[in-house]
Amino acid sequence: MELPEGYNFRRVKVTDHNEYLDVLRVLTTVGEINEAQFKELVDHWNSVEGIYYPQVITDTQGKVVATGCLVVERKAIHQCGKVGHIEDIAVCKLQQGKGLGLVLIQGLTAIAEKEGCYKVILDCSDHNVGFYNKCGYTHSGCEMVKRFD
Amino acid sequence: MELPEGYNFRRVKVTDHNEYLDVLRVLTTVGEINEAQFKELVDHWNSVEGIYYPQVITDTQGKVVATGCLVVERKAIHQCGKVGHIEDIAVCKLQQGKGLGLVLIQGLTAIAEKEGCYKVILDCSDHNVGFYNKCGYTHSGCEMVKRFD
Ligand SMILES: CC(C)(COP(=O)(O)OP(=O)(O)OC[C@H]1O[C@@H](n2cnc3c(N)ncnc32)[C@H](O)[C@@H]1OP(=O)(O)O)[C@@H](O)C(=O)NCCC(=O)NCCS
Ligand SMILES: CC(C)(COP(=O)(O)OP(=O)(O)OC[C@H]1O[C@@H](n2cnc3c(N)ncnc32)[C@H](O)[C@@H]1OP(=O)(O)O)[C@@H](O)C(=O)NCCC(=O)NCCS
Repeated sequence: MELPEGYNFRRVKVTDHNEYLDVLRVLTTVGEINEAQFKELVDHWNSVEGIYYPQVITDTQGKVVATGCLVVERKAIHQCGKVGHIEDIAVCKLQQGKGLGLVLIQGLTAIAEKEGCYKVILDCSDHNVGFYNKCGYTHSGCEMVKRFD
Repeated sequence: MELPEGYNFRRVKVTDHNEYLDVLRVLTTVGEINEAQFKELVDHWNSVEGIYYPQVITDTQGKVVATGCLVVERKAIHQCGKVGHIEDIAVCKLQQGKGLGLVLIQGLTAIAEKEGCYKVILDCSDHNVGFYNKCGYTHSGCEMVKRFD
């Protein structure tokens, strides 16, 4: 699968601020995050080398239309192996169903492989299992949660 | 739930090398990891502040009998929120069924709450859902995986 002509897959920039947060709003609550707070977060992601790979897809106008993050965890098991975690996948409403989600997952998965991960995992709702199957992912276990409110 | 008299819950040390890896072997393949490699990993975990919380439980002899790691991820969603990921929970065979697993999960969960996470998540097999329910965790979604071999 390839991106449409003029679309790009790249790392997030501080200047993506509002466009990035707007895309994430299809996923869940984002809240009000000002420019300085967003810059602090992106700077943090950039400062810890080899851990966060926050990526976006931009359209022909350079506008952010999809987001997703790979987090690389270093473990002891599997010969000091690395595991990739895919987080916060979102495609903006008007661009859903055009294959962007698939390219996004493929792109993040390719980064994980290049970084030497032995596997990539992600958690999703029952509703999205079919989408991740099309991306080459298979069901593996149960996600358990504890929330603090 | 409390630890038995003389047991401790603490961060892993470089000198835990062989005991730490032996406990992890109840979980999965560990492979051969020499002292220098283990030191490099623990030094890495310690060098990136606020991300890795690799913990152990030791017995009355100071021997490592259980392991688990909390990984704290910084996100944009939920007002630049943090999510805790619990990874690689293992209690050595002879010490299973004595409440150590429960104390371990409670300890890692308490670290996540103190670090300001809005939730903690973990992935487990169907077989262990009952254990995590006893730890106050509820089923949330599906874990999906892609392996590179
Ligand atoms: C789920 C989401 C990421 C999918 O991205 P997308 O760009 O709309 O999906 P794509 O166009 O790349 O779909 C790729 C394939 O998966 C299929 N697919 C998409 N969503 C699906 C779903 N929920 N169930 C089953 N199949 C699905 C598509 O039909 C397509 O199959 P095809 O190639 O045979 O036509 C996107 O719709 C989205 O952001 N939704 C809202 C937020 C969300 O739920 N995020 C994921 C949280 S786990
Ligand atoms: C699973 C594991 C972490 C549990 O730790 P443990 O110290 O043996 O469990 P605890 O004694 O703390 O158990 C706490 C409670 O959960 C229950 N429990 C333990 N394992 C359970 C299971 N698989 N299913 C249902 N309940 C379980 C216990 O009976 C106990 O309940 P009680 O207080 O009502 O008696 C441990 O057995 C282990 O390391 N197993 C092998 C590796 C593994 O599977 N790791 C987890 C990968 S997701």
